[in-house]
Amino acid sequence: MQVTDTLTARRRFLQPFSGQALDPPPVWLMRQAGRYLPEYRETRSEAGGFLDLCYTPRLAAEVTLQPIRRYGFDAAILFSDILVVPDALGQGVRFAEGEGPVLEPIRDVAALKRLDLSRTQEKFALVWETVARLRQDLPCETALIGFCGAPWTVATYVVEGHGSSDQGEARRWAYRDPAGFQRLIDILCEASIGYLEGQVAAGADVLQLFDSWSGSLADDQFDAWVIRPTARIVSTIKARHPHVPIIGFPRGSASLLADYLARTGVDGVSCDTSCPLPVMKRTAETGRVVQGNLDPLLLVAGGDALDARVDAIRAAMSGQRFIFNLGHGIVPETPPAHVARLVERVRRKL
Amino acid sequence: MQVTDTLTARRRFLQPFSGQALDPPPVWLMRQAGRYLPEYRETRSEAGGFLDLCYTPRLAAEVTLQPIRRYGFDAAILFSDILVVPDALGQGVRFAEGEGPVLEPIRDVAALKRLDLSRTQEKFALVWETVARLRQDLPCETALIGFCGAPWTVATYVVEGHGSSDQGEARRWAYRDPAGFQRLIDILCEASIGYLEGQVAAGADVLQLFDSWSGSLADDQFDAWVIRPTARIVSTIKARHPHVPIIGFPRGSASLLADYLARTGVDGVSCDTSCPLPVMKRTAETGRVVQGNLDPLLLVAGGDALDARVDAIRAAMSGQRFIFNLGHGIVPETPPAHVARLVERVRRKL
Repeated sequence: MQVTDTLTARRRFLQPFSGQALDPPPVWLMRQAGRYLPEYRETRSEAGGFLDLCYTPRLAAEVTLQPIRRYGFDAAILFSDILVVPDALGQGVRFAEGEGPVLEPIRDVAALKRLDLSRTQEKFALVWETVARLRQDLPCETALIGFCGAPWTVATYVVEGHGSSDQGEARRWAYRDPAGFQRLIDILCEASIGYLEGQVAAGADVLQLFDSWSGSLADDQFDAWVIRPTARIVSTIKARHPHVPIIGFPRGSASLLADYLARTGVDGVSCDTSCPLPVMKRTAETGRVVQGNLDPLLLVAGGDALDARVDAIRAAMSGQRFIFNLGHGIVPETPPAHVARLVERVRRKL
Repeated sequence: MQVTDTLTARRRFLQPFSGQALDPPPVWLMRQAGRYLPEYRETRSEAGGFLDLCYTPRLAAEVTLQPIRRYGFDAAILFSDILVVPDALGQGVRFAEGEGPVLEPIRDVAALKRLDLSRTQEKFALVWETVARLRQDLPCETALIGFCGAPWTVATYVVEGHGSSDQGEARRWAYRDPAGFQRLIDILCEASIGYLEGQVAAGADVLQLFDSWSGSLADDQFDAWVIRPTARIVSTIKARHPHVPIIGFPRGSASLLADYLARTGVDGVSCDTSCPLPVMKRTAETGRVVQGNLDPLLLVAGGDALDARVDAIRAAMSGQRFIFNLGHGIVPETPPAHVARLVERVRRKL
């Protein structure tokens, strides 16, 4: 009996991808493992730099598991960072305290020689080991999500050398020298495919592609740098692993969702906070899984407004292939009790 | 003859608002007066702080006229800043060199007493004098656009105390205490209405409301803080000045454009760079004027790619009530020759 129950439960997160709407919907939260949890901060203090945490399978697996223990989310997401890919390619990434990531920028074709596809295994293997541990240690009802940054978004960091509000350097390179920029995107596609396939081999059930900075692109640039590279990654992985659902997250691109879904081949889409609920509903009605989109700042505020919005999102997506999530990652000042309240509310019978 | 010609020409910019599609379309560019022009930098050096430039009618009028002399745009936009409103209300705004605006933040209802609606005239009058000068000095074929920041966007600066990437402080206050935040929005609406009406009285032909930070809002928040305040401003001004077209610019909100247009009552909408051309076309087909949306970074890059995109935008909007513009303001590193090339291309017979 126990076995049947847990197997059923484990499949719960995956059911929307097989065409089944669930009520209540499955739930997980972007950045559910992180600084808002005291146990995360404790584990974090055992690692040196932030990337050391990502590259230490014991610690990375531990922080991945922490929110599952607390809240029983339907899915765990591998604890890692989208900048593992350029780091493994040899660009060298460090996280300055309180400043975010710092990279030695690459701004022309000549500098691409600093990226070496043949050396990625060394660091990727550490992440894959984390996935393998998680596959062992996770409750069997919990799905495991692997991920990477989508090529455009990773490229913005590779080119800028840090986060930026408008991704100006990357957009400029793409306009000035599209063929050269395409070579950077090709390298990132290639590395990402290997990285994700290793995660699947190690036990990831689902993959998510984070395209956090797709929202700054004009439609023709979105086509070239978001849709086409994503389609290439998806088709390559699908050819070898047709059973692994892939979720895309083109943040800030609600008005291009239909194109994105039609042409990338992803199985589902994560919607950011600004995506209107009617757009999410219409998207789900086309037969794709939709995930989203509570404002992380409302989770900080909590209270009746939080409950009301959770209910509104659930009501809008009722009967659809829907996974409850935030529209962006949990912020550090989120009270853990608000997360518990959210999960309880999402799982309430309506 | 001359009189007829110039009257006709002056109406050119306004014709789309009377239901007429023009080919080639009228053209102006956001931030067309600015640091990319050497003559602007020279005039700027005569003023003390940046706001001194905005509050000195002779200089503000001069920089407004500079791009008209160079490029013959179909419209001039009053040179000013969206933070004139909180400055005039008494919050005190300064522009730190290379850092952008700095305000002493207002983060709760108690601090709202620092904003005084009765004292705005003093500074607004200086801006109105600039408008009156421009009405005199502009070629009569050039329309004059007045503007202000929309309440939500101005509120983000009032609350944060500076620009921010996610408008987190304002969003948090709005969630925590919507009634208190509404009071701030009400003050900004009231001040903006007076400010815009004074611009119309002084000779502005058209008004534009800049809502640069609307894109971070969930749909219910967009309704409360973008649509409703904008509708209030538009209906109040329309009641007294029904002939003055009003353009809204809810940046980053392409997926909410239809709602915004249906419920705010604006006559036209400016679309940012990420707004897909098919969305712009569909929007224009509903009978509103659409303005946009070339990427300002493509204007920096220039060359054949610039020409091709100008042509693509024109082709997509052909036959519509369309005004050519950028998707956001001109950036300082834009070569003035690229702007000349753009204008020439927009005005070419297709």
